[in-house]
Amino acid sequence: MNYPEPLNKLIAALGKLPGVGPKTAQRLAFYLLNAPAAEAENLAAAILEARRKTHYCSVCGNLTDRDPCLLCTDPERDQGIICVVEEARDIVALEKTRQYRGLYHVLQGAISPVDGIGPDQLRVKELLRRLQGGKIREVVLATNADVEGEATALYLARLLKPLAVRVTRLAYGLPVGSDLEYADEITLARAFSGRHEME
Amino acid sequence: MNYPEPLNKLIAALGKLPGVGPKTAQRLAFYLLNAPAAEAENLAAAILEARRKTHYCSVCGNLTDRDPCLLCTDPERDQGIICVVEEARDIVALEKTRQYRGLYHVLQGAISPVDGIGPDQLRVKELLRRLQGGKIREVVLATNADVEGEATALYLARLLKPLAVRVTRLAYGLPVGSDLEYADEITLARAFSGRHEME
Repeated sequence: MNYPEPLNKLIAALGKLPGVGPKTAQRLAFYLLNAPAAEAENLAAAILEARRKTHYCSVCGNLTDRDPCLLCTDPERDQGIICVVEEARDIVALEKTRQYRGLYHVLQGAISPVDGIGPDQLRVKELLRRLQGGKIREVVLATNADVEGEATALYLARLLKPLAVRVTRLAYGLPVGSDLEYADEITLARAFSGRHEME
Repeated sequence: MNYPEPLNKLIAALGKLPGVGPKTAQRLAFYLLNAPAAEAENLAAAILEARRKTHYCSVCGNLTDRDPCLLCTDPERDQGIICVVEEARDIVALEKTRQYRGLYHVLQGAISPVDGIGPDQLRVKELLRRLQGGKIREVVLATNADVEGEATALYLARLLKPLAVRVTRLAYGLPVGSDLEYADEITLARAFSGRHEME
């Protein structure tokens, strides 16, 4: 016995979402069938509208509904520093810290030879173009702390070296609130080599 | 800083799904933005189509795209026994066992005074009507093994008592493959009182 065909299709479509297995897809599908009609229609419309109205900022590569995006056009932000991230969602994480008030540049990925992604597939040329004006003092490499992110940071650091710009990298170390005992050895080694004087 | 408005709307709509918190909603939204256009459109269409084409069977209350549903019209199935379940998805779980070849009746809920759901909100009248023909020999109460399911089973058992029909309830006991040590005491007590002779 099987579900009616339209329900099967919905379960299959939901099952393609990341982290959604067959059981969850089934639960979500039943929820959508039993939810108020407006809620289900609203979700369908939101998917289509987000796809239609959201684009990448032509300057920084952030997700935006206007171009250039709000971050690029904000006069309050320091126009002399660019923070380079892999994905647009990393910007949200960094903005939540309220520590950084400069510009961003989204690479839209990281160097990953396994997946066939080299510098040409990333927004590296766009970054170089932004540095040409000479107005940028510093580039903060905020790629992920994994192999791909590290490789990308190393590549960019070497690429930018000839330019008269300071290139920095986010610090590695113990996550705040974490137990030393449970830290993996590589993190611990990095935290050790990155130790600094107490003030 | 916030996401562009269409993205916020999509995150909000996804966040209404059961088991989807803000972080997951965000991840799903980004996935839908980056997925091939066909995939996102397919999901939106599947939601609308499932809502439009899926209905409840007028006989048993199962989800179906035709009326009466395939289960009600299957001549291979025993027309003398009805298995009463709370939700349409329970039918799928029971069908997977390949143990049962009779009819079903979906109550579309369970008695729950806390939520203001009494017998009148459930498909109880429809069940009584199906029993009137006198063709039904047995009603299997397969409501959930929780408080609401048990209350509903007790209510139905009393209601059906005057009718010349056998009323049975699914067995309680240890789940197959489980460790006695980890069984809760109520399950264990039920398994004990329901013990039977070894063959």
